[in-house]
Amino acid sequence: MTAGLPAAVRVRDVGPRDGLQSEAPLPVSLRVALVRRLAAAGLREIEVGAFVSPKAVPAMAGAAELLAQLDDLAGVERVALVPNLRGARDALAAGADALTCTISASPAYNRRNVGMEVEESLAQIERIAALAGGLDVVISCAFGSPYEGEIAVAEVARIAAAATARGATRITLADTTGMGTPRGVAELLDALGSDVGMHLHETRNTALVCAYEALRRGVTRFDSALGGLGGSPFAAGAAGNLATEDLVHLLDDLGVASGVSLPHLLTASRELEAAVGRPLPSAVARSGPRLATG
Amino acid sequence: MTAGLPAAVRVRDVGPRDGLQSEAPLPVSLRVALVRRLAAAGLREIEVGAFVSPKAVPAMAGAAELLAQLDDLAGVERVALVPNLRGARDALAAGADALTCTISASPAYNRRNVGMEVEESLAQIERIAALAGGLDVVISCAFGSPYEGEIAVAEVARIAAAATARGATRITLADTTGMGTPRGVAELLDALGSDVGMHLHETRNTALVCAYEALRRGVTRFDSALGGLGGSPFAAGAAGNLATEDLVHLLDDLGVASGVSLPHLLTASRELEAAVGRPLPSAVARSGPRLATG
Repeated sequence: MTAGLPAAVRVRDVGPRDGLQSEAPLPVSLRVALVRRLAAAGLREIEVGAFVSPKAVPAMAGAAELLAQLDDLAGVERVALVPNLRGARDALAAGADALTCTISASPAYNRRNVGMEVEESLAQIERIAALAGGLDVVISCAFGSPYEGEIAVAEVARIAAAATARGATRITLADTTGMGTPRGVAELLDALGSDVGMHLHETRNTALVCAYEALRRGVTRFDSALGGLGGSPFAAGAAGNLATEDLVHLLDDLGVASGVSLPHLLTASRELEAAVGRPLPSAVARSGPRLATG
Repeated sequence: MTAGLPAAVRVRDVGPRDGLQSEAPLPVSLRVALVRRLAAAGLREIEVGAFVSPKAVPAMAGAAELLAQLDDLAGVERVALVPNLRGARDALAAGADALTCTISASPAYNRRNVGMEVEESLAQIERIAALAGGLDVVISCAFGSPYEGEIAVAEVARIAAAATARGATRITLADTTGMGTPRGVAELLDALGSDVGMHLHETRNTALVCAYEALRRGVTRFDSALGGLGGSPFAAGAAGNLATEDLVHLLDDLGVASGVSLPHLLTASRELEAAVGRPLPSAVARSGPRLATG
């Protein structure tokens, strides 16, 4: 273990949701197989889908069926993204183990993403958290917004505190359009503390360096997506999530335990690549680990 | 400026050499235009070409003509890569301001790259350094080898010391096949000190995080290539250099002065992209800076 870094972290794979939401829809059976592969690789928290309008996001259709088919999956928290109270009710009825809900530090992005003002989203978070008995609140555009530019750290902190006051049991800082830098990570963590999750994108090749800076500052929760797929359909220029392969490759080298097996992940990558029909963005999926173990 | 980081660094763009060496050959006129664009963007050290066999590396043909056409370029160190004494003589005769020569910490890579044992390369470094009155020695595979796997830090340190004893005036640690990690950077710098250059590749998406770790440890010299093109023709799986755009984007955000203008670089990227006829690997070239300035 590298001095000064956490001994262990928890990786949440958001690939079946954030990774696939902008892709041509994959059948539920393939998405179920993907979740099972991720679970076999050691992931204990998987964002399996979103309870959103299938008209708005066709790739997320069939989330209830997907959860039903994953009913036997032991030891894995099956997380569902919900945009509103109706989605929350549906997700809980379908058997989701935990819910995540996005609010944006960018008012313009919040309107485009969920059609609400930030204060309306906070009010909704209170209702969803009460219904679910807890809630992961993802603050999107926390590192900057394609609409407003810089977002004040104080505003991100205000939203985090307001969400917590309304029942959020966990806060995740999302770099929706890849505007994060180690400086931004440092400023946010100085203000919010390290008990937050990090959800990073590679739009400007900064996701891994931001994850490293967060690790150095004691963060122990990371979102990533198998293959590095992903990107918001509501933000122009958004690109792939931090790839789970690239993150785990770095964690392994640093001696930070994640419980995730890179060889198993790479098996899952190959299946995902076949399913989406094109090379995955993940550099480690493409090149293999630095010391190929054959 | 971010606390603990150097106030300023020197970026050497190796794009006209390492970036283009594996590409379909570009005419000398286009390579001259690329170097001029880089100079206009503020780069003060540019690896303009290599004096190698045009049969072995057709993309590097015409290096003498290229230097002749850049004779008027003021304030820029025009660096030439030379594999041997003959190349060194030719490069100096053509007007190169400085020479760089590669020796590998991987014996197998050294044989493939220059057809010599490591000790033979050291002997040759002595002759080239004497001829040129100084020499930048690049230690390739310093972070690991695709042939031998891990390379002992002590062996890299031994080669660096031996090269210095034979007249090298500067040492650069090269991650030829993208096996670098922040851990590896830390271990090497603990052994060699921070007065080294870093030459990184994105094969496994670790170049920028390695550059950041090196910065944190006081390194002030970085190689990068416009667009993130590149990779050795003698190492399977080698991928692009750290992109100058991605590096300068990070340096700017951290408040570390490089003297390089990102908007000017992006102009150069667009011309390079047109010249090579396909999208460049650089994420910042593709997505633009985090705060687009229009």
